[in-house]
Amino acid sequence: MAGKFVSMRNLKFLLYEVFDTVALTRNPYYSQHNQKSFDLVLDASMKLAQKMLFPLFEEMDRKAPYLEDGQVKVHPAVRAIMKEFGEGGWIGATFPEAWDGEQLPGILHCACQLIKSSANYSAGVYAGLTAGAARLIHSFAAEHLKTTYLPNMMAGKWQGTMALTEPQAGSSLSDITTTAYPTDKGHYLLKGQKVFISAGDHDGVDNVVHMLLARIDGAPQGVKGISLFLVPKKRPDEKGRLVPNDVSVSQVFHKMGYRGAPITELSFGDKDDCRGFLVGEPNRGLMHMFQMMNEARIGVGLGAAAIASAAYYAALEYCQTRPQGRKVGAKDPSAPQIPIIEHADVRRMLLFQRAVVEGSEGLLMQCALYEDFLRTTPPEEHLKYELLLELLTPMAKSYPSEMGILSTSQAIQCLGGYGYCEDFPVEQHFRDCRIHPIHEGTTGIQGMDLLGRKVVMKEGRALALFLEEARNNIAEARSVAGLEALSQKLEEALQTLEQVTGHLVGLIGKRGVEIFLADATLYLEMFGIIAVAWQWLLQAAVAQKALQGKPKTTDLPFYRGKLVTARYFFAYELPKIKGLYQRLTDTDALTVEMDSSYFND
Amino acid sequence: MAGKFVSMRNLKFLLYEVFDTVALTRNPYYSQHNQKSFDLVLDASMKLAQKMLFPLFEEMDRKAPYLEDGQVKVHPAVRAIMKEFGEGGWIGATFPEAWDGEQLPGILHCACQLIKSSANYSAGVYAGLTAGAARLIHSFAAEHLKTTYLPNMMAGKWQGTMALTEPQAGSSLSDITTTAYPTDKGHYLLKGQKVFISAGDHDGVDNVVHMLLARIDGAPQGVKGISLFLVPKKRPDEKGRLVPNDVSVSQVFHKMGYRGAPITELSFGDKDDCRGFLVGEPNRGLMHMFQMMNEARIGVGLGAAAIASAAYYAALEYCQTRPQGRKVGAKDPSAPQIPIIEHADVRRMLLFQRAVVEGSEGLLMQCALYEDFLRTTPPEEHLKYELLLELLTPMAKSYPSEMGILSTSQAIQCLGGYGYCEDFPVEQHFRDCRIHPIHEGTTGIQGMDLLGRKVVMKEGRALALFLEEARNNIAEARSVAGLEALSQKLEEALQTLEQVTGHLVGLIGKRGVEIFLADATLYLEMFGIIAVAWQWLLQAAVAQKALQGKPKTTDLPFYRGKLVTARYFFAYELPKIKGLYQRLTDTDALTVEMDSSYFND
Repeated sequence: MAGKFVSMRNLKFLLYEVFDTVALTRNPYYSQHNQKSFDLVLDASMKLAQKMLFPLFEEMDRKAPYLEDGQVKVHPAVRAIMKEFGEGGWIGATFPEAWDGEQLPGILHCACQLIKSSANYSAGVYAGLTAGAARLIHSFAAEHLKTTYLPNMMAGKWQGTMALTEPQAGSSLSDITTTAYPTDKGHYLLKGQKVFISAGDHDGVDNVVHMLLARIDGAPQGVKGISLFLVPKKRPDEKGRLVPNDVSVSQVFHKMGYRGAPITELSFGDKDDCRGFLVGEPNRGLMHMFQMMNEARIGVGLGAAAIASAAYYAALEYCQTRPQGRKVGAKDPSAPQIPIIEHADVRRMLLFQRAVVEGSEGLLMQCALYEDFLRTTPPEEHLKYELLLELLTPMAKSYPSEMGILSTSQAIQCLGGYGYCEDFPVEQHFRDCRIHPIHEGTTGIQGMDLLGRKVVMKEGRALALFLEEARNNIAEARSVAGLEALSQKLEEALQTLEQVTGHLVGLIGKRGVEIFLADATLYLEMFGIIAVAWQWLLQAAVAQKALQGKPKTTDLPFYRGKLVTARYFFAYELPKIKGLYQRLTDTDALTVEMDSSYFND
Repeated sequence: MAGKFVSMRNLKFLLYEVFDTVALTRNPYYSQHNQKSFDLVLDASMKLAQKMLFPLFEEMDRKAPYLEDGQVKVHPAVRAIMKEFGEGGWIGATFPEAWDGEQLPGILHCACQLIKSSANYSAGVYAGLTAGAARLIHSFAAEHLKTTYLPNMMAGKWQGTMALTEPQAGSSLSDITTTAYPTDKGHYLLKGQKVFISAGDHDGVDNVVHMLLARIDGAPQGVKGISLFLVPKKRPDEKGRLVPNDVSVSQVFHKMGYRGAPITELSFGDKDDCRGFLVGEPNRGLMHMFQMMNEARIGVGLGAAAIASAAYYAALEYCQTRPQGRKVGAKDPSAPQIPIIEHADVRRMLLFQRAVVEGSEGLLMQCALYEDFLRTTPPEEHLKYELLLELLTPMAKSYPSEMGILSTSQAIQCLGGYGYCEDFPVEQHFRDCRIHPIHEGTTGIQGMDLLGRKVVMKEGRALALFLEEARNNIAEARSVAGLEALSQKLEEALQTLEQVTGHLVGLIGKRGVEIFLADATLYLEMFGIIAVAWQWLLQAAVAQKALQGKPKTTDLPFYRGKLVTARYFFAYELPKIKGLYQRLTDTDALTVEMDSSYFND
């Protein structure tokens, strides 16, 4: 197995050179930190990843979770991993110190997550879900729930989950039927089924805490009748002992990848004794849950980028060391073979992977930074960052997820036949990565969210803010010698985005909302490419300026590699919007107007 | 598991409506056949696929081959499958009757292969390789080898293989080192290693016959010193008994997919007692082998299209039966949910799969028909069909292989979380399909073959012939009312192809052959899209004409579905060449001129 899975040099480039992470420490909320303490946190992440997570990457795939006597059994190391994530402060990394958290900036936490998830995506999921559930409790739950549940979750002793999907509803949350019956004892009695619940049960923790969506008996139909509940697997009785809470596992799914963590189907209240506690306001559950879902969506993009990173470095190592063939045109068959990284087509495949990985990392950190700005800027600026974050979330989720499939696939291709075999890690990366366009809202759902909600909300304000941000960065990049062409290409891409958006929004009145949204997935694809091009221009500008200064000799390959990868993105990836432009402005309503019977035969 | 894996209606549409397969029977070579006998063969294929192959699809994946006491053990059904393929005449389907073959047209055989491979790709590989090896023996081997080996191979008792790749050489065949030492007894003694040999050993047959590339001791270096040998696992002794021939299995690979068939690493002559027999002329082995390789390349494309077909029908069945959500804009949450096939984005995903599957099937049958023309047209026309076949082979291999990944991935996406689980077949299709861009020459190799050899050979004659064929079809399509726009789009695409080709060929003199070939893979991608667009125009013209006649009511959905899928291809897929055009005409030599050290850090 390859030894490298992520580039610390690149993460520090993003944290300290592209984004001014250290500036956050001038704000009181983050004033206990400085670059030195940030570096220590990064080093600790890397140590955890190298010593504990990466060595288990393959084994946790091969020994997948299984159900035995109603209990999901996971790899024995999961308990130690959860303990380490708890005691090391990783679950509470962004929690306030008042709740025993580390109060770290989100952007730094993002870098740490990239390190850990690239070492072993599945292993990081347990803690990530627990942190998300804990944040939801912290934001909306009553004090007695916080004191009962948060300390155990943040210590990694209790698992947290998101329990949304139901067998008959899938992506259509308005159709969930799990019901909460009020009692006069302060709790509700829950009854229903949930499906595809990650880490929904396992023996690596002492308890599981489900953040569950259900309808209070008699609530309105549709999404306006959904409430949020905390439902533990075991509930503390009056003496504080944990007793079963009538939550049972009906199955654990056998998955193609992402096998280090279980996905479960759960049954609540089979014996009419499943107690849940309302979190937040009745019938506003979906709105509350969106806090965790948005965070989880960015987390999914992060997982995909991390897996693509690990696959890229495995492929890179192979290409640097595997001799095969000679330069095109070299005629002497007795000359020694060259490492395959010397072949142009192999470099193209590597540049593609690097462009996806580092472009995605930039976009994810950008989102994390906007979230940090919500804590460090005056309230009158919050709307701006909220809107930018809302707008960019579908791309931050979907671009790495969709491109992760292609990127890990190219990693396999770099290794040829070996890449298809279990002796190398890239086939597992390819299998692991395929989950991401599905969970936390499929790519199709993200497209509808982007075009049908985010782009049109507040009269297009979010999109206008994005264009303004990008154009400010273009103006800065234009002033850097050598970046005129890339700057101009991004400006043209933004104009394409404006044209397409105008055309599509114009369809709402002219041809109806169904035709307007028919190709929303392709609009998302186009916007994703442009958003990542924006990030590449930011990175190129920093690298170019560094090269025009007096960089250390040892830094030269890194900065030059950055620039080449940026040029690759603008030369090979950005042109893909040309075809998308043609499709998106050619509204023939093919998929809306056809009859489903045409698929017969 | 879904019940349908291929559309017989579509195969007959291609065989009898798009391509005039029956016309072949006017030639003496095929005169014993007629449409009725063709239909019987198709029905027999379907029966074999449904009764024997499809039920084993999942099981052969779960019980993968393993090595035990030097013998590869495969699923017990493989012996019965090989027997059935032998006795049923499938291995000898296109062999002349003089050799106990069925003397079937290649295009019909292509349809039969699509049926069997979509039912169970791995199961069909054993017989396919045996047929290819047998054809090589039939074409080039001495009479005594033919009589010893062919009957057992065609009966499915002995397995045939292609043994080309070596651990240190990979795609670089000029670097193979397996050596053949002449003896004075009519055989050679072989010594060396071969790797990634499909069906290289197994217990479903009594013997294995390797068609192996090696250097005769003292032969020139490079590809001009490679000869072709027949090397059996067991050789008949003077009394006709089979005795071991010093061929051993050093490992069987554990693969991500395509698990129903073993891929092996083999060692020849560890005890200096491995006898091989020269086939064809010394030092011309690679040229001889190309017959089998070209056939195998089209076979790989066929396998990919077949797997994509099976995944498409599994996804289609799910989308037709799974209720979820409501029409965009439908506000009443109490209204019943609709089958997801009613959603525009789901239809888009299904149309994509269908466009890939049926477009690929068209291209594959077109190639098979050109091969048939080599038997049925006067000799002066042969060069034309040879050149067209040579030119189209890289696309027939690569388009289905590369798009198969995306198509099976979309099948998973149609099923959401269920698609990622082993309860449904699509995750296996996705894993199985990933082999195809690798074996029988990677996509990168195909790109170099297309641009560096096929396009420039004979002063571009092959390309000129392709353009002529396509323009003849455009002229016909223009005369069909309603196809003017699609015809025009294909004409524009051909012009794009000519421009890009001219630009690239111009680089040879101006900037050298390495820059000329740097993006050959993208040129292949562009050419593949255009070749499939050509096939879609052919299919659309037939469907449109049928609709303008008096079609049976039951045929209406099929023809209308054809037209919608053709329109989908031109509206969503063909525009992708815009981005490729931009890249391919923007020759910045990025991948050639960069330093490999830029990938460090």
